[in-house]
Amino acid sequence: MKETVYLVGAGPGDPELLTVKAARLLQTADVILHDALVSPAILALASPAAEVVNVGKRCGNKQVTQEQINRQLVEFASRGKLVVRLKSGDPLIFGRAGEEIHALREAGIEVEIVPGITSAVAAASAARIPLTDRRYAEQVLFLSGHCAEGKESTPWNAAISDRTTIVVYMPGDYLRVTEKLIAAGVSREMPCLILSRICSPDQHILATTVAGMSSLSRLDSPSMLIVGDVVGVHDFPDGGKASCNSSSAKMESARVLFAEQ
Amino acid sequence: MKETVYLVGAGPGDPELLTVKAARLLQTADVILHDALVSPAILALASPAAEVVNVGKRCGNKQVTQEQINRQLVEFASRGKLVVRLKSGDPLIFGRAGEEIHALREAGIEVEIVPGITSAVAAASAARIPLTDRRYAEQVLFLSGHCAEGKESTPWNAAISDRTTIVVYMPGDYLRVTEKLIAAGVSREMPCLILSRICSPDQHILATTVAGMSSLSRLDSPSMLIVGDVVGVHDFPDGGKASCNSSSAKMESARVLFAEQ
Repeated sequence: MKETVYLVGAGPGDPELLTVKAARLLQTADVILHDALVSPAILALASPAAEVVNVGKRCGNKQVTQEQINRQLVEFASRGKLVVRLKSGDPLIFGRAGEEIHALREAGIEVEIVPGITSAVAAASAARIPLTDRRYAEQVLFLSGHCAEGKESTPWNAAISDRTTIVVYMPGDYLRVTEKLIAAGVSREMPCLILSRICSPDQHILATTVAGMSSLSRLDSPSMLIVGDVVGVHDFPDGGKASCNSSSAKMESARVLFAEQ
Repeated sequence: MKETVYLVGAGPGDPELLTVKAARLLQTADVILHDALVSPAILALASPAAEVVNVGKRCGNKQVTQEQINRQLVEFASRGKLVVRLKSGDPLIFGRAGEEIHALREAGIEVEIVPGITSAVAAASAARIPLTDRRYAEQVLFLSGHCAEGKESTPWNAAISDRTTIVVYMPGDYLRVTEKLIAAGVSREMPCLILSRICSPDQHILATTVAGMSSLSRLDSPSMLIVGDVVGVHDFPDGGKASCNSSSAKMESARVLFAEQ
């Protein structure tokens, strides 16, 4: 029987938002290679006998190269270990899964993907904002703002329709994101939400506009940005209640929605 | 204490791909109002004492209107029942959650969202295709093809960049989808995968191109379409193995990839 490596989505950090299958695999894996963003509460599910290795890189600050990760996956699997490659969110969205799948296949090792709750969906859930709404948005676009790692990223699609909800993973530099959104045809007045540390005790959600965002101080990373009319019409709940398990997660009460610059 | 209605994502149909929280809520709910697409294996998790109501509509063939669903949610919650509104995939993506959230808030009832694995992610996992890949695709666009319910849907974004992976939920009429993709600037030769009945024993995956798709017979519904260079470069696995639990799920071996019309 061929060896299999499981590429597993860890979701946004709350162990209750793992899939049933991911939770089971974490409990039975011999080896877990995980990204830096995977939460301690999730890693705590691993068996005490498991080898748990942080292969994370945070925005250019690489401890381990992609090639080294690929090699480790192949080596552990070849020794007959049950290997879980654990990635924050979903492995197939901004997760570098392509390169790992390719390396494993080349080595004759099977790959199984266990999907996870991607951060866009987790952010929308935390804010209780639908990403589509037949009245306001009939498409959703996921972009990445962060970690261009040296190379200048390409411009975003020109002519993004008003009826598109845009989710930017890791927006990073707000001024640059504002400029890129406006260059892509998004209105300066379009409402948006910045969500910082979703599903953690420090969860923070801030409402603003595309133009308003450019002058704000950066919220703690990891963060997400949701842009579109769905944000403006769906008045998200006030006060300290978040939909994750973190009891002290807070929602920004001093809303700056529609506060034009 | 205020009543809460849980809007819960059922994912693609495999009970192992529910979140831990969704599985727990299904087991404890007094009332479950579910869409037609939710699988019997998932409904089997409900407590024998639970009231399980199919409020599904399939493509215009409505048994229950959205207004009736909203009213039922409010009524059950007002009677102090633990109410789960269960939607295929994720509730916030093509799930009509906006209208239900609005109706519940108007009635003074709290809403909590429990995200699910959205069909785009489930489809990509089944085919083991990354939706982004820094070499080929830096953004992902989710569109809906199906069930325009009478009204002519608006054209898709013009000038979709080659470096965008497009996922069409419920593509429906392939000829019409091909025309809309080409009108939006997508190349006729762009590779794509049609995925039918993901995670079921009848799972079927077919590789073709945008132009090639137009003359194919429709695969069984529900289906998904993934369009982009990620499909062409990531040679998905041959033969009968699918990543879901369905033992007999099959992958189309007679591939028509790059078979131009």
